Order: sequence, then C-alpha cells, then structure tokens
Amino acid sequence: VGNFNNKEDFLFNQVYDYVANRIDRNEWKEHEKLPSIRQLAQELNIHRLTVLKGYQLLKNDNRIYVKDKVGYFVESKGKGIIDDYSETPPFFHINSLSDIQQTPVEYNFSQALIDPNLLPNQYLSDYVKKVFDLYPKVLATYSHVQGDEELRETLTSYFIQQYKAFLHPNQLIILSGSQQGIHLISQTFIKPRDTVLLEKPSYSAAIDIFKSRGARIITVDITPDGYDLNQIEQYMRTYKPRLFYLNPTFHNPTGYTIPTDQRKELVQLAEQYQCLLVEDDPYHDIYFDMKPPQPVYTFDASSNVIYLRSFCKYISPGLRVAVMICPTTLIDSLISVKALTDNGAPLLNQKIFLHYFLSPRLQQHLDKLRIALQIRKEIMERELAHSDWHWNSPHGGLNLWIKVPEYLSTEPLLYQTLMNSISFVPGSFFDPDKNLPAWMRLSYSYTNEANLQKGMRKLIQSISSTNR
Amino acid sequence: VGNFNNKEDFLFNQVYDYVANRIDRNEWKEHEKLPSIRQLAQELNIHRLTVLKGYQLLKNDNRIYVKDKVGYFVESKGKGIIDDYSETPPFFHINSLSDIQQTPVEYNFSQALIDPNLLPNQYLSDYVKKVFDLYPKVLATYSHVQGDEELRETLTSYFIQQYKAFLHPNQLIILSGSQQGIHLISQTFIKPRDTVLLEKPSYSAAIDIFKSRGARIITVDITPDGYDLNQIEQYMRTYKPRLFYLNPTFHNPTGYTIPTDQRKELVQLAEQYQCLLVEDDPYHDIYFDMKPPQPVYTFDASSNVIYLRSFCKYISPGLRVAVMICPTTLIDSLISVKALTDNGAPLLNQKIFLHYFLSPRLQQHLDKLRIALQIRKEIMERELAHSDWHWNSPHGGLNLWIKVPEYLSTEPLLYQTLMNSISFVPGSFFDPDKNLPAWMRLSYSYTNEANLQKGMRKLIQSISSTNR
Repeated sequence: VGNFNNKEDFLFNQVYDYVANRIDRNEWKEHEKLPSIRQLAQELNIHRLTVLKGYQLLKNDNRIYVKDKVGYFVESKGKGIIDDYSETPPFFHINSLSDIQQTPVEYNFSQALIDPNLLPNQYLSDYVKKVFDLYPKVLATYSHVQGDEELRETLTSYFIQQYKAFLHPNQLIILSGSQQGIHLISQTFIKPRDTVLLEKPSYSAAIDIFKSRGARIITVDITPDGYDLNQIEQYMRTYKPRLFYLNPTFHNPTGYTIPTDQRKELVQLAEQYQCLLVEDDPYHDIYFDMKPPQPVYTFDASSNVIYLRSFCKYISPGLRVAVMICPTTLIDSLISVKALTDNGAPLLNQKIFLHYFLSPRLQQHLDKLRIALQIRKEIMERELAHSDWHWNSPHGGLNLWIKVPEYLSTEPLLYQTLMNSISFVPGSFFDPDKNLPAWMRLSYSYTNEANLQKGMRKLIQSISSTNR
Repeated sequence: VGNFNNKEDFLFNQVYDYVANRIDRNEWKEHEKLPSIRQLAQELNIHRLTVLKGYQLLKNDNRIYVKDKVGYFVESKGKGIIDDYSETPPFFHINSLSDIQQTPVEYNFSQALIDPNLLPNQYLSDYVKKVFDLYPKVLATYSHVQGDEELRETLTSYFIQQYKAFLHPNQLIILSGSQQGIHLISQTFIKPRDTVLLEKPSYSAAIDIFKSRGARIITVDITPDGYDLNQIEQYMRTYKPRLFYLNPTFHNPTGYTIPTDQRKELVQLAEQYQCLLVEDDPYHDIYFDMKPPQPVYTFDASSNVIYLRSFCKYISPGLRVAVMICPTTLIDSLISVKALTDNGAPLLNQKIFLHYFLSPRLQQHLDKLRIALQIRKEIMERELAHSDWHWNSPHGGLNLWIKVPEYLSTEPLLYQTLMNSISFVPGSFFDPDKNLPAWMRLSYSYTNEANLQKGMRKLIQSISSTNR
C-alpha cells in the first residue's frame, strides 16, 4: 500500500481491509453500491481523502469499480472492470487548503512551513525551563490583552534598531499568529460590501477572511517587477477601498518582492486616497542573497499602514506568536476587538519567544536556516529545469510559483498527484476569482533534500505524461 | 504613599514626584493648569487611574487643587484649598471591567480569578519539562484547528466517565479560553438584530460580545431558586431567540445554581422553540459541600446545547485552554470560523494541560483548593455579617453577589473605594441594561486571608459612612 508514514499507512489499510473483508464475507455482494466516501469517512472517523485513497487502491486491485456520478460498486469476482468510468474520482472535492494539508503524502510541496527538523526544538525546550525559573507564576497569570509588556518593549527596540523608525510599545499588539491579525483587522475595519484590494494571487487565508466578512474584493496584479501603480491608483480612485492587504516581500505564493521606490509611492497613494495598507511580512528574514527592502510601514508618515510580522514561522510555529504594529490612531479599536476575541495571547508562549528572541542563538539559527532553505530551493529548481514549466527564481521565502503549459489545469491534476503521494497547491487557491488554472505553488521548505529530488521527479513525470 | 505592591507604588510616586518636582522648580506656576489625566497617562505611558491616584495624593497634600469639569491646578504655596471642587474625580470614567482590573489596589475583590499562590505552579513547570521530553518537536508543529487529538480523546473519556453521556472526540473543540468559545458562537450563529437571551445579571464579557455583534438582548431573571420557566417559555415564544447564553452552575456573578428539574425542562423548551442553549460552566469543580447538578448538556437529546468548560481557571489561567462540546450538526461551521480566527490553539499549551489533567495531582490540588476557597468565602461572609448588606451564601464559585441599601449606588462608590485601594465590580457591569445600581460582586478568590479581612472591614466602613 505504498510507503506512507505509519499512521496514514495504517488508515489506508484499514479502509482497504474494512471493505475487502465485507466483500470476502459476502456482506457486500457483487455490483452492490458501497457507502459514499463521505459516509465511510464519518463512520470510520477518518478524512475523506483517506477513504478515497483506500477506494482507489481497491479499484486498482479490481475489487471495486466506479460509475461516474453514481458511486463505487463491488466488482464481480475474478473479473476486470466492467463499466465505463472516468479517471477523476467522483463525489469528492477538495474545497480548501486544509483539505490538501490534511492529506497524508510522502512528498509534501503544499506546506509553506519549515521542516520541523530545521527548527531549534532543543534550544527552545531549554528556554522554556529558563522561563519557569524566571517567572514561576507564568501559568497563573493572564497577559495584558495587548500582549506582554516586556515582549512589546523588546520588539519595539528591535524595530527601532532595524529601521530607525519612531515606535512606541503601545503601538504593538501581540497576536496568536499573524492570521489572527488579518482576522482582527477585518473584524475591526471592514463592513459587509466594503471594498478590499488584494494582490492576485494572494494568501488564501486572507482571501477567505475578507470574503467571509462580506467584503467586495478587487484584485491588483503583482509581477516580478512589482505593482502597476497606475492600476492601483485607478482602483483607489474608482472603488475607494477601505484597505489593501499586501505581502510585498517574498510574496506568497509568487516570491516576488516590491522594490523600494514603489513602496514609497504606494504609501503616498494610501495617504491620498485614505486607503489603509495592511502589510503582511512573514518571510522578511528568509532571504538568500541580501536583505529585502525596508517594510512599507517604515515609509509611512501618515498613519496609514498596519504591519504584521510573524517570527514564529522560522522559530516555532507551535508557539503561535506574531506581532502587529499599528498607528496610534487605530490601536484602541483593535485592542477592543482582540479583548472580545480571546482576551490576549497566552503569557507562557510570549515569554518563551521573548527569551529565545533575545538570545544570540536566534541569529545563528537564522544563518543556518537560510542556507538550508536555499539548498532546498536549488534542488527543486534543478529538477524543474528538466520540465517545460516556467518560474521566477525568488530571493527569499518558501515557495516557487510555477506556470505549467496553458492546456493543463492544476486543480484536476492535484487529484492525480495526491494519488501518487505528492501534494502541491493549485493556483486557483490563491486567486479570489478562483482562476489561474495553469499555475501552482510548490513549497521547498517542508520536505527533506532526498525526498525533494525524488518527489519533484515523480511530479514532473506525472504531470508531463498527462494528455493534452 | 500607602502600602501598595512595588511596581504600582513606584508608579504613584513617579507621578507624584514628576508633578511635585516641576512645581518645586517653578516650571509649573501657582494656579497654572496641569496636564489632563489622559495627557499625562499617555506621556508617562501608565494607566489613567495611576495618574488619577497620583493627583489625588498631591491634592491631599495640598500641592494641587481641582476645579470641577475644568481640571487640576497648581496650589498656591503654603495655602489650603482655595476653590470649590467636587469630591468625584473629574475627567475620568471607568468604562469597562478591564479599567477596574488594571487599577492597582491592595484589596482586590474585583478579580474572579484564583490567587496565583493557590495554583500548582511548581507542578506545572514539571509537566512542561515532561512535555518536551515526550514531544521534542511540540513547538515545531501546528495543532489541528479543532485541537490536539490526544487531548480531545482524553477529555471525551473524562466526560463519558463523569456523566455516562455519549460523546465523540469529534464533538470537541479546544479553545484559547472559554471566552473565545462565546465569541466563536456569536460569530457563527448570530446575525445583527437576532435575539439573544441572557441572564440578568450575566457575565460581562458575554454581554459585550453579543452586543458588539449587534444582537438584540432580552434578559431572563435568575434568582436563588433558579429560573422562572414560564418567563423563559414566553420569551422563546414571543421573541424567537437564536440562543440563550446561560451559566447555570455557581452562576457568575450571583453564585446561584439552577436545580436539575429546571435543567431538564429548559432542554425541552429549547427543543420546542429551536433555541440553542449555550451553557458556560467555568466553576463546575469549585464546589464546597457537594457536587453540583449535571450540566444541562447531558440532558440534551436533540442537539440543542453547546457546552463550554474551562478547566484552566483553577489550574492555570495563563495556559488559556478550554473546551467546547458541540452537537455534531453544528461542529463544522464552528471549526470553519475557528480556522479563520486563529487556525487553532497552540499545541504546547494543550499538551501541558493534558499531562497535568491526566495526573493524580489534579485531584489533590482540587481538594485543597476547595477548602482554601471555602475558608476565604467564610472570612468574607463573617465580615459582611457586620454590615446591613444582603447576599445568598453560594455553594461554589468565586463570588458573592451583594445588595447594599437601595439609596446607595455602587458605581459611584467604586471611585471612592478605589481611592482606598479596594476594588469590586458594580452590579451595572453585569446587566445588559446597565442597571442594578444597588448590587455589587465581591470575589473572595484572589486576595489572601489577612487582606480579605482587613479589606472587607475598610470596604464596609467606607461604604457605610456614605451619606444617604
């Protein structure tokens, strides 16, 4: 049943055995309809894709067959396939990124997360012990809603030292992950039918958050050269957007970076048209050759930029600590909403992060991590060179943004590659209009070097063999 | 400057010295207007009440005086007070519970939290180390949005064993505190202008959450005998509420407990009128004589109750782990909203909680805690016996719900007691209609025994000396 990791291997086999045993015992008879994928997933309390893969294996072994749009049926004994069926699995649809991420695969190119083996787990465990020595009652107390004061002061000094920008600890809110920041901003500043600008493509969680808020979404193009500022100005003038959510540094999914002059111009447009800029900057420290341009917020002199920075992605995703820098004029309303939402992030996590952040080990870790990720990126690109696909080599971040030939569509291809234990994210997941069929995001950060090479070869082979 | 804790003591003195020095150096001259409380608070980056108390001390020392509705002024040297002024502090208003909680006081009766000295801090620190040995990569991974599987399975077994109710781990969502659960429910099920039933009085955060969602709030009376079920039925019939948020066990703030027969009837009403019951149960394990009745959700056979249980209040508020039990029919929509909000609680916190929860130390801790809290409650009640105030002695929970004579109003009294370094929460904070002027909540859980006695004496004296 393939070389999956243990638990998932177990689950596929369970589905396979569950069905095969019933057929063997004649509980389910020839040409009888099997439970739907959804039914069996619920019954066995496993993910639908696990059932799908179990069924697929049973089909490969000629134990069951499928009728398109009808369902799966018990195959006649000793027979081959008797009915026409389509190659695309029926009754199953991947609706969200988490449907993909929850699918167990050997070659994971869908997770824009860093391989846990590259993270400073042992060091962090030391810091946890230190935190308990320093603050024996850290678990007995709530943090301030806005976040631990010591952490806010430390991060303020860091930003001042990095960018020499004026900043006060009262402008910072500590978040449980930067996605929480996008959600807070949406709850605080967006009413249904307000217009929001998003890049095309954009971060899928941001698309979901603004859509679920009932916002009207207008997309702004992002290319290897950056934005078309005329387009942005026209949209700001015409649609009066309440905010523009952007990810200008090693952009997810494309890896593109907006140059400094465009950042300055954008801030001026934001002021002129009173459009809030929400700058998400999770990959700022993941650069390969040279540091990226300064964040957009450092050019803002008129309180029009909210800055979201997640450090935890490359230290410890499990801590869920991120920070929001916010103009003084906007902070109170954001704190009020944060107070309603969860009344503040857990203090323990903030203190662990603080002490690691303050240590010289962080810099050492980052230096090593950049090299490791660059190597992985190069392995992926070396394999891609054997394909007829296109991409722009990014100078940082975790992802490649790939264009396959126009006649292909990556969304149906995903079902096919998942069957081969390879995951990626189709372009449509990053497009508010659910378009971009010939694109996909491949993350090189999560899978180790050996599997990167093997998986990429399988992926290219699998997709290239698809008929026109 | 009084016997405050160190940091706050420092802050008052800082305000005092800051102002006094400028007056001494003649930078601020006789009868010159001082910065407003808000200005100085911002300038010194401290809470407004700290400034207020600093000014109050300066006024007591005849260094400054106040003109009602105008501001504070530098007193003429060597003189007494020269202008009329009102005794109520100007330009300052306590708007929220957090305004009270952030006020440094010696006698804290406003925090419905357990004294950190009563919490198992040392033990928890041991469990943290254990967690890192067991899961060395706990900080490198995200938890599932719904919560760690191992924790959900453990809690499921616990609830089944406690109540013999059917329950599946897929019905549980792990929350970052039970308040997050209320917020999730409000986001998921309430549209603006939907009707929501709340008890009168009710938990202030719940009032804020449903109000901010734009819900129309109808209040249901809660008395020492429980609910008036005729009233509830009438409201359900008339107003078709989407949900009823209730806290039926050692209710906050009153301490009242709804009897079992009413719980059963309520579930039937909920089914009949298709009104969701949201049962918040943070004090379930804090009982003094005997266990409280079974939760309302255990009587529900028709998927009409969502149950919120926080364990962390009496283990470790800083962990921020709570659980929601939810009918299968409602869970998917709640998980979707949770995914948008913060994409899941931090895994570390869930694992620490899990291992403490599984240990026999939890039961030992609870046994001791109940005794300690009962002693504190009795000290508070012994002092109250010397007043002409009324209350019902609760059988669990953290609070007494006190009625002072009708001619008094607890909200203005709060300013007066805060000046005497005593905090409590006025009744109006628990009333969606901002009424209940003759009531207040006194929490006996946060202040140690010696200060409980001293503080209660001061409080009773201070309020009883107020003129009719």
